[in-house]
Amino acid sequence: MADLHVRSVLVTGANRGIGLGFVQQFLQMPKPPEWVFAACRDPKGQRAQELQNLASRHPNVVIIQLDVADPSSIKAAAARVEEQLEGSGLNLLINNAAIAKMTTLDGETLEDMIQVYTTNTAGPLLLGQAFLPLLKKAAQGSPGSALSCSKAAIINISSSAGSIASPLGWDKMQVVSYRCSKAALNMLTKCQSLGYREHGILCVALNPGWVQTEMGSSSGDMAPVTVDTSVQGMLKVLSSLSEKDTSTFLNWKGNVLPW
Amino acid sequence: MADLHVRSVLVTGANRGIGLGFVQQFLQMPKPPEWVFAACRDPKGQRAQELQNLASRHPNVVIIQLDVADPSSIKAAAARVEEQLEGSGLNLLINNAAIAKMTTLDGETLEDMIQVYTTNTAGPLLLGQAFLPLLKKAAQGSPGSALSCSKAAIINISSSAGSIASPLGWDKMQVVSYRCSKAALNMLTKCQSLGYREHGILCVALNPGWVQTEMGSSSGDMAPVTVDTSVQGMLKVLSSLSEKDTSTFLNWKGNVLPW
Ligand SMILES: NC(=O)c1ccc[n+]([C@@H]2O[C@H](COP(=O)([O-])OP(=O)(O)OC[C@H]3O[C@@H](n4cnc5c(N)ncnc54)[C@H](OP(=O)(O)O)[C@@H]3O)[C@@H](O)[C@H]2O)c1
Ligand SMILES: NC(=O)c1ccc[n+]([C@@H]2O[C@H](COP(=O)([O-])OP(=O)(O)OC[C@H]3O[C@@H](n4cnc5c(N)ncnc54)[C@H](OP(=O)(O)O)[C@@H]3O)[C@@H](O)[C@H]2O)c1
Repeated sequence: MADLHVRSVLVTGANRGIGLGFVQQFLQMPKPPEWVFAACRDPKGQRAQELQNLASRHPNVVIIQLDVADPSSIKAAAARVEEQLEGSGLNLLINNAAIAKMTTLDGETLEDMIQVYTTNTAGPLLLGQAFLPLLKKAAQGSPGSALSCSKAAIINISSSAGSIASPLGWDKMQVVSYRCSKAALNMLTKCQSLGYREHGILCVALNPGWVQTEMGSSSGDMAPVTVDTSVQGMLKVLSSLSEKDTSTFLNWKGNVLPW
Repeated sequence: MADLHVRSVLVTGANRGIGLGFVQQFLQMPKPPEWVFAACRDPKGQRAQELQNLASRHPNVVIIQLDVADPSSIKAAAARVEEQLEGSGLNLLINNAAIAKMTTLDGETLEDMIQVYTTNTAGPLLLGQAFLPLLKKAAQGSPGSALSCSKAAIINISSSAGSIASPLGWDKMQVVSYRCSKAALNMLTKCQSLGYREHGILCVALNPGWVQTEMGSSSGDMAPVTVDTSVQGMLKVLSSLSEKDTSTFLNWKGNVLPW
């Protein structure tokens, strides 16, 4: 983890759960980023209280209003971040925000399919587009040509529930709309890695494990991994990524997962 | 191909391309199905002329109005098919209808992402739900417990462009919305196979190859495979499927593709 030196990072869904955990861990690094953009859809709301407290103690935390399901909100957030960065680039975009609907195969509806896909898959696509100029700038301003997270990267937080080869947890949670959205996010990660390679941007899909958050508790069972452990693991993985790792699907321990 | 004995089959997008090819080949079998439900969204339109001609010569072809992106149209189609079947089940549901938008990664929009996903992924989900009672009935009315296409099956027409491990043709066509929708369709196929196994329904994702249709020509290059060759290949594959093949991703020659 000590090896991850990013000047700037943006995390979506940063007000609670794993997103908030990322913000906290970035601040605790020996050399914290100059800017931690903590994006959430309702910065003034009750659910952003803890993030607000954190920001009041850390001047390098900038809270950004962002609804990942709303293209105009995404564009406005990118403009806001660009302004703050004053000509420098963004090293790391962490697409973390997501939703899950606790439905069965029989109970899925078109509305749920579209809402989950918009948030979990289209959101990360549009964020990649909107922040591409800033990510490119970070890559160009960074020495050497090899890909790394300290240079420029898009990290899509996926799920082992989205592994088609081995779709974890079917017996407990069917969540077909969620699984389809995460399999599609894995495909998006592959496409982004192919399309953004020439710009010096590394792209990976990361499974955080089964984590103690609201989403992680929605099956009713107790998740085994704490937010801190998961995020520490993921940051260690990020620090180790190089050229050969772009376009892979990894878990928080660094193991490759099957698509 | 001679080994595939289905009493009834429904094909979506049956008015042209690969869908129409399926209808034609079913009619040419030594023992054709009693009912070939040829579903298309505009049965009276210019683009359904060839199908109309075919139906006028073959009383076992029933043209069904069906827009796979419209849940109420799907329900109405299932009711119409149930009426026609007079108490017997549906052996085979072929989810063939799909769209592709010729866009680049940079040019994708939320609207395109949603429209393509609705047609290519949510459509097959909703069709599976709506036709489940008829598929179950076919499985129950068929001897033996082993899965097969002659018993009851859902065939999702996918694409090698939807293989995350090996996303064919990136240099010629980025088509990210299409790729994401087909990766998600592969996940749906996995979910359907897990959920419908107990009802005796086999589920596979099939890649038809690069075929001479409107979609197959949209890159501008000439596709190498004719509709007849692709459909004959796929029907041969379907005739050979058994228990062990449910939940796989196969091409028109019967080879397993990586997810
Ligand atoms: N927890 C697990 O066990 C687990 C397992 C596998 C993968 N994951 C993945 O890990 C990531 C984080 O999950 P989590 O467990 O931390 O979930 P969580 O506790 O439910 O938090 C979800 C976060 O996403 C935000 N969000 C949802 N929709 C949004 C939108 N349209 N715009 C902006 N923000 C939005 C939420 O904001 P609000 O407060 O405004 O709702 C919240 O900050 C997700 O991608 C999830 O799929 C989690
Ligand atoms: N051709 C290839 O090289 C290739 C390669 C890989 C996979 N595939 C897959 O093979 C399948 C058939 O493709 P194709 O090449 O035959 O494509 P095509 O020639 O473009 O035909 C598409 C068919 O889908 C129908 N359709 C589209 N949206 C619909 C909707 N909302 N409701 C009902 N029908 C709808 C079209 O009907 P209208 O006439 O009303 O538009 C048409 O009948 C698709 O799943 C495609 O993804 C094709």
